[in-house]
Amino acid sequence: MRKEFRDLAPAEEAHDAIASLDLGGGVERVPLREARGRVLAERVDADLDVPGFDRASVDGYALKARDTFGADEADPAVLDLAGVVHAGTEPDLVVGEGECAEISTGAVVPEGADAVVMVERTTERDGRIEVRTGVAPGDRVMFAGADVAAGERALGPGTRLTPREIGLLSALGADSVPVRARPTVGIISTGDELVRPGGALNSDAGQIYDVNSYTVATGVEEAGGEAVLYDHAGDDYDEMERLLVRAAEECDLVLSSGSTSASAVDVIYRVIEEQGELLLHGVAVKPGKPMLVGRLEGSAYVGLPGYPVSALTIFRTFVAPAVRRAAGVPEPRTATVAGRMATSERYAEGRLRLMPVGLVEGGPEEGDDPLVYPVDKGSGATTSLVEADGIVEMHPDTGYLDAGDAVDVRLFSPDVRAPTLFAVGEDDPALSRLLDGVDRPRFLALGGREGLRRLRNGVPDVAVATGTDDPGFDAVELGAWTREWGLVVPNGNPEGVEGLASLVDRDLRFVNRASASGLRTTLTDALAALAEERGTNRHDLVSAIDGFEAGVRAHESPARKVLAGRADTGLGLRATADRLDLGFVPVGTETVRAFAAPARAEKPSVRALADAIAEGSPFETLSGYDG
Amino acid sequence: MRKEFRDLAPAEEAHDAIASLDLGGGVERVPLREARGRVLAERVDADLDVPGFDRASVDGYALKARDTFGADEADPAVLDLAGVVHAGTEPDLVVGEGECAEISTGAVVPEGADAVVMVERTTERDGRIEVRTGVAPGDRVMFAGADVAAGERALGPGTRLTPREIGLLSALGADSVPVRARPTVGIISTGDELVRPGGALNSDAGQIYDVNSYTVATGVEEAGGEAVLYDHAGDDYDEMERLLVRAAEECDLVLSSGSTSASAVDVIYRVIEEQGELLLHGVAVKPGKPMLVGRLEGSAYVGLPGYPVSALTIFRTFVAPAVRRAAGVPEPRTATVAGRMATSERYAEGRLRLMPVGLVEGGPEEGDDPLVYPVDKGSGATTSLVEADGIVEMHPDTGYLDAGDAVDVRLFSPDVRAPTLFAVGEDDPALSRLLDGVDRPRFLALGGREGLRRLRNGVPDVAVATGTDDPGFDAVELGAWTREWGLVVPNGNPEGVEGLASLVDRDLRFVNRASASGLRTTLTDALAALAEERGTNRHDLVSAIDGFEAGVRAHESPARKVLAGRADTGLGLRATADRLDLGFVPVGTETVRAFAAPARAEKPSVRALADAIAEGSPFETLSGYDG
Repeated sequence: MRKEFRDLAPAEEAHDAIASLDLGGGVERVPLREARGRVLAERVDADLDVPGFDRASVDGYALKARDTFGADEADPAVLDLAGVVHAGTEPDLVVGEGECAEISTGAVVPEGADAVVMVERTTERDGRIEVRTGVAPGDRVMFAGADVAAGERALGPGTRLTPREIGLLSALGADSVPVRARPTVGIISTGDELVRPGGALNSDAGQIYDVNSYTVATGVEEAGGEAVLYDHAGDDYDEMERLLVRAAEECDLVLSSGSTSASAVDVIYRVIEEQGELLLHGVAVKPGKPMLVGRLEGSAYVGLPGYPVSALTIFRTFVAPAVRRAAGVPEPRTATVAGRMATSERYAEGRLRLMPVGLVEGGPEEGDDPLVYPVDKGSGATTSLVEADGIVEMHPDTGYLDAGDAVDVRLFSPDVRAPTLFAVGEDDPALSRLLDGVDRPRFLALGGREGLRRLRNGVPDVAVATGTDDPGFDAVELGAWTREWGLVVPNGNPEGVEGLASLVDRDLRFVNRASASGLRTTLTDALAALAEERGTNRHDLVSAIDGFEAGVRAHESPARKVLAGRADTGLGLRATADRLDLGFVPVGTETVRAFAAPARAEKPSVRALADAIAEGSPFETLSGYDG
Repeated sequence: MRKEFRDLAPAEEAHDAIASLDLGGGVERVPLREARGRVLAERVDADLDVPGFDRASVDGYALKARDTFGADEADPAVLDLAGVVHAGTEPDLVVGEGECAEISTGAVVPEGADAVVMVERTTERDGRIEVRTGVAPGDRVMFAGADVAAGERALGPGTRLTPREIGLLSALGADSVPVRARPTVGIISTGDELVRPGGALNSDAGQIYDVNSYTVATGVEEAGGEAVLYDHAGDDYDEMERLLVRAAEECDLVLSSGSTSASAVDVIYRVIEEQGELLLHGVAVKPGKPMLVGRLEGSAYVGLPGYPVSALTIFRTFVAPAVRRAAGVPEPRTATVAGRMATSERYAEGRLRLMPVGLVEGGPEEGDDPLVYPVDKGSGATTSLVEADGIVEMHPDTGYLDAGDAVDVRLFSPDVRAPTLFAVGEDDPALSRLLDGVDRPRFLALGGREGLRRLRNGVPDVAVATGTDDPGFDAVELGAWTREWGLVVPNGNPEGVEGLASLVDRDLRFVNRASASGLRTTLTDALAALAEERGTNRHDLVSAIDGFEAGVRAHESPARKVLAGRADTGLGLRATADRLDLGFVPVGTETVRAFAAPARAEKPSVRALADAIAEGSPFETLSGYDG
């Protein structure tokens, strides 16, 4: 019973459907101390004068201004001291003619006085006070209500509370303030295979960690809502119905997310259609086709796609604005960045495409628009979450974006900052450490060949590759380091592996790297040399190795398979073997080089990487067999 | 024993002194669910493959690719069904030659299978599966580690955690993450006269609410620190020492703030100098001369000025960047706005001036730089906190800024948004309600005359004034409303006040408005008419009124003095009397008008105000005596 989504609604209809939902938006009182970032629900008028009394603005003497008429340095007025008024105490005196009172900044100007003279213009002599200047009535006095006047409009509804508003509300003595309530958003993760982060994972049973729950919950909180996580449900109708109804009763909005399984989506669809009201199913947006919008138990419901980047994209595009509206939170100013396409991109499926893109600063000039490149790692890759910075909308009738075209990138979050360095190439543990010396680097471990190819095409700043000091096009070598490679074996080398010959001649379960890996190329070259030594050809040697043709993408994976007892030996680096406390049979050393695009060689981040390489710390020591 | 601050240090030295302090910056682990906005303290490498198994990317059938060789619509491959594999369960079958297994998206590709065909390209017939397309090995399979590979660098140190990073960390199964600890910042408010907001205030004893504690605490939290408030201390040396030492022991940084009293500053100065280490006292910055920087008990100490705008300015300029550095939080991107001076400003005191300024959108064109005008309400005004939006730095050698000069405004907070409407003029309760219809208005109640003067000088968008329909220069009238004015009396009108004649002829304690008030002008005109009726002059009448010459700035204050029993009658509006449940003796009605600068008349916010006036709701009803 699989639901086909026909008649996909245009994006505008999805916005309208969500806008028609009631997402809460009540009023609550919160202590002023916890009100930062909240939004006032009502106007606040001052109901007292600030200050509430005539207040001395300086340390000095309170007096009758007319007693100082004509006074100057040469001919000071001489007044009797009637007493002292401290800040925070009620005056116990009245200032009569010819008198004054010592007064502190902030103290009440006592009855009888109409001005204050600052202490610097007076001299105490024989218990009397000489005032060396004439003052006018009101001088150095802040009259009651001069700062905030009772009845004045202090802050309007919708005001976001930043430190300055908290300050004004403090002055008015508010200990709590009426703010817009945060809409509560229930998040239901569906899929039997999902495990909450931190739980034990059984990969053999196909379990994976639940990515969407925390991702979407964080997005909800960023938009001013309060997220409530519900335990994930299976595909059983009754169980799903109970969970959806409970979440709807407890929350203003329910989001389901997490499963890519058509059957779970079908079950939710049926629950909303039969128990609630389905407003929209399927939107002509890529991704987002399976989006659902409806109502259940008086609450709003939106179904998000299952893949993390799709879920976050649809959440940001359609749901977050509605959460912000309900919370009274303004649209973030930093949510959009102008850039220009680094490559051309064709698209003509007749749907609005929300294309995930990465950003890279285009050159050494500050103020240059960043370059924008599409990120498409295929369905379901969680790493796209951090390899893309945001979304470019390609409208159904656009079809084509040319390199250099101006585009607006809607960031995944207003806090997203584009990387300062974009590097592509060979993965390497020393490189991981080197990148720690760069502020916000992005590195895609796609292998050296792909790194050089992309560098030549002008998108990344840097390519990292092994095996060549001449990439064959114009590039600046930033630096190099060596690494020792060989065969990773269990600790103690129980099989007595002795090098490539063992691999070829014995019946060992071997784990190779994937074909993009520079290390695999290095191994292949070494096997070719061995074949020449033996007077045979490489293919004969290679076909004798169990596991040579397959290969894993991750540089640690062969070692981890050895660690797990699933292989006898794997292709790897000494650094990896050491880290995982495995044995290592060295075969050779190779040089890893970083190349920069000439136009970017002076970018501060590229210089920072070059400096980190030059500091030399990551050079691996060369040493013999230690397995 | 008052400390004179000689040899003021330049601003750069103050930055250096604060940068030399240790503000904490340790590492703590927080649950992933609470990690939003935090900053990673260490690099996080993946320690597992994602997915941890070869995973089906679609609903369909797992099979051996070679069994589908040459299959097409006309000649499908027909396979036996070996069983079913659901997501989240371990396969209990092996796919043999000529076999397939039904498989859900996300499920483990079972042993023997090397590809998945999507269900849409298959047909079930008589218990066997027809595959209507050829597939290649690896099709529709996401191999183990293809998303995240074990050993890969996932996130670098210093990464701020937004939804997407939380997503990647979820995929890695992290339930807690090492983040930079928030520096703890103790805030000590000094001054006997200060009362925490929410506490009872004794104005007669000169008490005021403590503004700086909450303002600075909010600023600390915005900068990524954790604020701890300490109860305010008096000026006693021993008590102050105990409090400062306790705060220093408990916090990474201690800020004192709140008192303008020289003696409290002196006491703190002595404690730091005698018990700790004083690095700097006095900075050649306006405001900020009394700033102190030092160490106490191994913690950092900074003394802020007492006045709220000064305290927030010095905090934002000198302290917040250090708190952000310690917390690992990047400088906010929205903290600075480009504008141009609306008026000229002269300054030549040889100190760096941190000039509080307001912003107003300059015209109907979007993208026009906002106008910037100095806000200087004089010392200690808390309302400057919301009447200014930020700071313009005037360097010691600048001396003069001309109208139209480009300036950068550093906002008081990255969340500050400039008002959309800037109005100046006569305060009025109906206007307060009307402004609720405008998004982010700013209104300065400086009286109608001052409003018109400023409108003519080109700064505000709108002036609000009584008594004229012709401001005498080019302005657009946006609308008008009437208000009933008269004498506010106690409920029941115990003195039997009957109008202006009572005021002149009887011995009543009267409260007038200040001279900027349009209402006072209206009263004066009415008294002139009465004098003419009586054949005398206005001055004779005025001098017979006890309290006529003085006057309060706030439009509610006369009524509040009546309410407090401090006056027999006060000048005011029926709306105010009704709101405070007082009696009211009507004298007349007057019209209040809003005028816009012609160039701003089409600003959306100005239109919104005009629309709100046109809706007419605020018109007060005219009615007779109801005291």
